[in-house]
Amino acid sequence: MTPANPDYERDVRASFARQQVMSLIGARIARVAPGLVEIELPFRDDLTQQHGFFHGGMVATIGDSAAGYAAFTLFPPGSAVLSVEFKLNFVTPAAGTMLHATGRVKKAGRTLTVCEFEVDVAQAGGRKACAHGLATMMCLAETRGLAG
Amino acid sequence: MTPANPDYERDVRASFARQQVMSLIGARIARVAPGLVEIELPFRDDLTQQHGFFHGGMVATIGDSAAGYAAFTLFPPGSAVLSVEFKLNFVTPAAGTMLHATGRVKKAGRTLTVCEFEVDVAQAGGRKACAHGLATMMCLAETRGLAG
Amino acid sequence: MTPANPDYERDVRASFARQQVMSLIGARIARVAPGLVEIELPFRDDLTQQHGFFHGGMVATIGDSAAGYAAFTLFPPGSAVLSVEFKLNFVTPAAGTMLHATGRVKKAGRTLTVCEFEVDVAQAGGRKACAHGLATMMCLAETRGLAG
Amino acid sequence: MTPANPDYERDVRASFARQQVMSLIGARIARVAPGLVEIELPFRDDLTQQHGFFHGGMVATIGDSAAGYAAFTLFPPGSAVLSVEFKLNFVTPAAGTMLHATGRVKKAGRTLTVCEFEVDVAQAGGRKACAHGLATMMCLAETRGLAG
Repeated sequence: MTPANPDYERDVRASFARQQVMSLIGARIARVAPGLVEIELPFRDDLTQQHGFFHGGMVATIGDSAAGYAAFTLFPPGSAVLSVEFKLNFVTPAAGTMLHATGRVKKAGRTLTVCEFEVDVAQAGGRKACAHGLATMMCLAETRGLAG
Repeated sequence: MTPANPDYERDVRASFARQQVMSLIGARIARVAPGLVEIELPFRDDLTQQHGFFHGGMVATIGDSAAGYAAFTLFPPGSAVLSVEFKLNFVTPAAGTMLHATGRVKKAGRTLTVCEFEVDVAQAGGRKACAHGLATMMCLAETRGLAG
Repeated sequence: MTPANPDYERDVRASFARQQVMSLIGARIARVAPGLVEIELPFRDDLTQQHGFFHGGMVATIGDSAAGYAAFTLFPPGSAVLSVEFKLNFVTPAAGTMLHATGRVKKAGRTLTVCEFEVDVAQAGGRKACAHGLATMMCLAETRGLAG
Repeated sequence: MTPANPDYERDVRASFARQQVMSLIGARIARVAPGLVEIELPFRDDLTQQHGFFHGGMVATIGDSAAGYAAFTLFPPGSAVLSVEFKLNFVTPAAGTMLHATGRVKKAGRTLTVCEFEVDVAQAGGRKACAHGLATMMCLAETRGLAG
């Protein structure tokens, strides 16, 4: 996968920095590569559901974002990325100290790009997958007035 | 749909109150009825994505929760609810002053319950749908040591 | 929902008639309206899974097609429709004498249209839902050389 | 992944043989391994959609079945498998001489098993992915009176 935008990493990081909800929850970008983005989210009590684990919404939030930015790395300069839809399966409770979401492009297209994502949770005994997802992202040209 | 748990509303509200992430983002329960739960989320700058609208993760968070609690209203007393999976389509940007998520049970089962959810955004000109979703919820018996 | 194509019904029926797999399985169009298409499939032994009910793949086939043609009713003349993705939940075994799939447009867009579909099964005691789905359809302009 | 059923391959093949729709469309099992099943489907004119390619419903039918049987390989003897739900993205037109669906278990559970599937199409220039999917399968104990 060859990025059409030589500044893809800078643009991903700049767009992510404008997502204010990421500051609110404490998420950060861990890795940016062509067709792949990782986001991590350290545990905090105020990110939990009723049993004290990471809320599924947090798992979805960083999974969707990792997938969206993975697609964005392959878009032409000046494009914006839009989540069309996603689906995820929760496979184990998100009980641990850190979430790691990895988004990967499965098929890059001119208009639509299909990505998969996996969210792992780091626990005392290592990392294990807590969610698997599949997402459709849309590439919007700059002319629509959106940046990143 | 007849709730097996006469205290379903109290139990939904108590479980929701233990989801600390709902306090963090400012979400609240707007309505609880058999097989139906509404959650609302007022706009705040720190809930936004890069274009200044509600982040898709917030849409997913309250949509999934509305669906999960809609299922929970029909569970036997002492059960817990677990999100197995969900899928959602974003149909319009979530630009507005308030999100309203409505979860509805489509098919209640002993183990699995299927719900749909819709998230609307309130704007100057009224409310419009910004996301449609479909979710699978699981009923866990009390003996697993989880409450709600 | 106002169709942009005055001949939408004729075009849906002509496109459906070219789907040879529909003849193979015995599916037929039951209703065409703006933003809504119904397809029905009578039971045959050679459409079954291992327990003698309609195979889930048949449920998916007519559900996806009903959704796709529902979107197609709202496309401009000369367009083609492409399934981008779909998701469905099987809520009850498809045991009965006839399947009825109804596709409905939830949000029509220039490029992407989101549809829901429900597949019911007719049994001695009446009809009941056996699957609920959500699908994304794409509108392709005629210039790509595809018809319908 | 260690199969709990020493006769998993025999049981997969026997169950598949009872799916009469597989004979109708001409699908066959190409490979059975613990947590993995491949199904292939040679091209025929009567499996096509309106543009002469494999119909998306056929892609879904063998994708869902490959995922279901992949889960089934890990079930205890005497169990039956039920598709709870699946989602798939069509990433390229299914134009070619043969479809190959591969289902793989991502997470095996006592009640629910999550699988991914990929459907490839064989063309003159090689094989390429035409669909990616994610599915939830349920394990039913023998006592419900269903076989396989």
